[in-house]
Amino acid sequence: MFFREVINEDLGCVSYVVADGSEAAVVDPKWEIEEYLGMAEENGFGIAHILETHNHADHVSGRGRLAAAAGARIHAPAEAQAAYEHEPLREGDEIRVGDVRITALATPGHRPEHLSFLARDGSRSGEAWMLLSGDFLFVGDLARPDLAVEAEEGARGIFRSLRKLEGLGDFVELWPAHIGGSLCGGAAMSRKPSSTLGFERRFNPHLQVGDEEKFVRNIAAELPPQPPNFERIVELNRGPLLTEAAPPRALTPQRVEELLRGGAVLIDGRDQREFDGAHVPGSINVTTNQSGVGTRAAWVVPPDAEILTTAGGDEKARGMVRMLEAVGFRRIRGYLAGGVAAWRAAGLEVKTTPALDVSGLARLLERKEASLLDVRSVEEWREGHVEGSIHLPYQELRDGIPEKLRGAERPLAVACSGGVRSALAASLLERAGVEGIMHVADGGVPDLERFGVRLTR
Amino acid sequence: MFFREVINEDLGCVSYVVADGSEAAVVDPKWEIEEYLGMAEENGFGIAHILETHNHADHVSGRGRLAAAAGARIHAPAEAQAAYEHEPLREGDEIRVGDVRITALATPGHRPEHLSFLARDGSRSGEAWMLLSGDFLFVGDLARPDLAVEAEEGARGIFRSLRKLEGLGDFVELWPAHIGGSLCGGAAMSRKPSSTLGFERRFNPHLQVGDEEKFVRNIAAELPPQPPNFERIVELNRGPLLTEAAPPRALTPQRVEELLRGGAVLIDGRDQREFDGAHVPGSINVTTNQSGVGTRAAWVVPPDAEILTTAGGDEKARGMVRMLEAVGFRRIRGYLAGGVAAWRAAGLEVKTTPALDVSGLARLLERKEASLLDVRSVEEWREGHVEGSIHLPYQELRDGIPEKLRGAERPLAVACSGGVRSALAASLLERAGVEGIMHVADGGVPDLERFGVRLTR
Repeated sequence: MFFREVINEDLGCVSYVVADGSEAAVVDPKWEIEEYLGMAEENGFGIAHILETHNHADHVSGRGRLAAAAGARIHAPAEAQAAYEHEPLREGDEIRVGDVRITALATPGHRPEHLSFLARDGSRSGEAWMLLSGDFLFVGDLARPDLAVEAEEGARGIFRSLRKLEGLGDFVELWPAHIGGSLCGGAAMSRKPSSTLGFERRFNPHLQVGDEEKFVRNIAAELPPQPPNFERIVELNRGPLLTEAAPPRALTPQRVEELLRGGAVLIDGRDQREFDGAHVPGSINVTTNQSGVGTRAAWVVPPDAEILTTAGGDEKARGMVRMLEAVGFRRIRGYLAGGVAAWRAAGLEVKTTPALDVSGLARLLERKEASLLDVRSVEEWREGHVEGSIHLPYQELRDGIPEKLRGAERPLAVACSGGVRSALAASLLERAGVEGIMHVADGGVPDLERFGVRLTR
Repeated sequence: MFFREVINEDLGCVSYVVADGSEAAVVDPKWEIEEYLGMAEENGFGIAHILETHNHADHVSGRGRLAAAAGARIHAPAEAQAAYEHEPLREGDEIRVGDVRITALATPGHRPEHLSFLARDGSRSGEAWMLLSGDFLFVGDLARPDLAVEAEEGARGIFRSLRKLEGLGDFVELWPAHIGGSLCGGAAMSRKPSSTLGFERRFNPHLQVGDEEKFVRNIAAELPPQPPNFERIVELNRGPLLTEAAPPRALTPQRVEELLRGGAVLIDGRDQREFDGAHVPGSINVTTNQSGVGTRAAWVVPPDAEILTTAGGDEKARGMVRMLEAVGFRRIRGYLAGGVAAWRAAGLEVKTTPALDVSGLARLLERKEASLLDVRSVEEWREGHVEGSIHLPYQELRDGIPEKLRGAERPLAVACSGGVRSALAASLLERAGVEGIMHVADGGVPDLERFGVRLTR
């Protein structure tokens, strides 16, 4: 039996390749399919089956591209209401690749149609060896229950689905569809991609709770906000097969300027400090220095916007095209060839954002020479913030200038915890026409204490 | 806790990256270190520790290169007799990365100094979650016991080391240093990289055997031959740190010809059929179409030979330089820039090997118009061979023309099971000056039955 995980590191999504002899199955394929094809060629197997655990909400499935490239048959949950051609899967249905049997187990909760897959390697034993748990059971956590139905209903589903695992041995491996950093689970999700049922039974706090009401209260409480693109991604995943990736077109500065004038959005993936130094007016800084590029972009850019990219090098700009496609952007026009240097060389206008570090911010706050805009999450704010600062999670800046900012003193120093979200927020404000913005780089609010600024909890 | 396996697919070796917060440890690093460095940069951690389970015999450790690149501290078994600077590790010694504790467990058998590592994630539980078992316990198999000591002694060591796992739960994950295809274990090794102690306890046949004598008889019996480079690799791994990789130098056809005249060996990684069509006289075909490039080359080329490479494209030829370094070749001069096409364009001589497929071979055998040289392993030969054919595993062709071939009728058709080893064997014979060779491509002896040739068992 051949087995490999293939991770989309940007989104924290995990897919799996299960093969035996000349045949393979890919479970929950990601949008970029090159790795699957390379693996098939290197190992001399053909991709005969594609399996989906559910209609994903956080990434666009690569099933259409993979089916077109490899001629594979698609198997999807019968209840997924899929508009594409597929073999409907129900509890107990089985797919074989060589000696390996993959059996569907209905595990509703995260979504009503959700299936997990039990894999058995007949050459080793007739017993289940692995549970590919999709977005049901994670390492150290559980799926969020509120994306398809009411949180309470979802939580009850998860509680009951967990009972179905009781007959499986402690030695069964657990391979979920997400790792830490994904938006489909909570903060407790591990960055370790796999675990075992025995380990999770003992040490996953949610699995210690035998009382359904208490369980439901626990996991339906305090859910993070839902990204605005999730419903759209589900629709894309349910709809007709997407077989074509956007051609990553090289565009001249002049052409980019034309498209920007027509309403396109330029997403700049460079390091925050480089962006501060010089950037295309109106462009948005979503640095590729940190994972979650697609997710951050999807929070602040309308899904039907015309998109352009630029980054530190054309190769990275092309990579961003795929990252953005993976979260459902379908109108990506290309990238700025040669980057911002080419833009400047063409004599076009650039903007600069004044940046300061945490010690500089502390000094300004002490002298009351600036207001502070804190763009971190509600949880982070609660853990410690500066008295009198303005709190607006960066996601709330997507629709222009919020009311809260109207009377704020200038300059307005924009901070988060490390400098990534603050750069994004500063670029959004600049785009909206707000003046007197400063970007707090290389650190953020939690670091202020070291410079004598008191944080309120 | 962050955890990733990093596989050397050519050799079937597996290394691991364990990280938490800003620190990481790499266990059993492979020669090519770029993947570790990329992972560290992407995830924002520094590689602080390098751990070795034992002195590897099948691949050159990348520890020297990684220590030089990342400033990491090297930890090696106290009994490894290592000549390089390191922290000696003994049973119970512990290394911490963030909340993760990695504890050494002495598991001699494969080699006397062998350690396994137990990993605990303090943020989940104080109990062991993973056993990084090195070359001790594999998925579906055990390490071979005969590389460092007598097979029986090694087998007794493994038996006793297995007893030390009895206190660990079924839920503990098993992550060995090899997957199927590696020469360090038997044929039962799975191509699935991981398992659990509970699954192996139930379904690994060696772990069912509680009687020491029977266990020793089982695993010390019928061991495959030992590759000639293994002792040399152990010496390299024990000796002073290797910090420099060979520069992959582009060489002109004229320079390659000069080096060949001086005794260098050209290893050609192209597809077998392409090699048959036209190749540099005396070059050896070790196709990169199939994994085990380093291993096959090491079987037939002296480890101290001057080496040149060529392949389907310069990129692949450079990749071969790394693959060959990973099995201990230290005198790699570079690659033929532009490949065999450039050689031909320079007006230099090429050779052709007549090739035939299995139906053609069957016809020749039926009409008694050729002898058959079968270069498969002893086990494959026993499972079915052609009466009257000559059997010489390809490894035995490395020292010139074997006695067995002297009286054989011509032409001599060279076959294996798929066409890879037969191409290698045919190139070795041609290099040794044997005439009238034909290469059986795209199939081999087991396929002859379909064409009416009886196989003897």
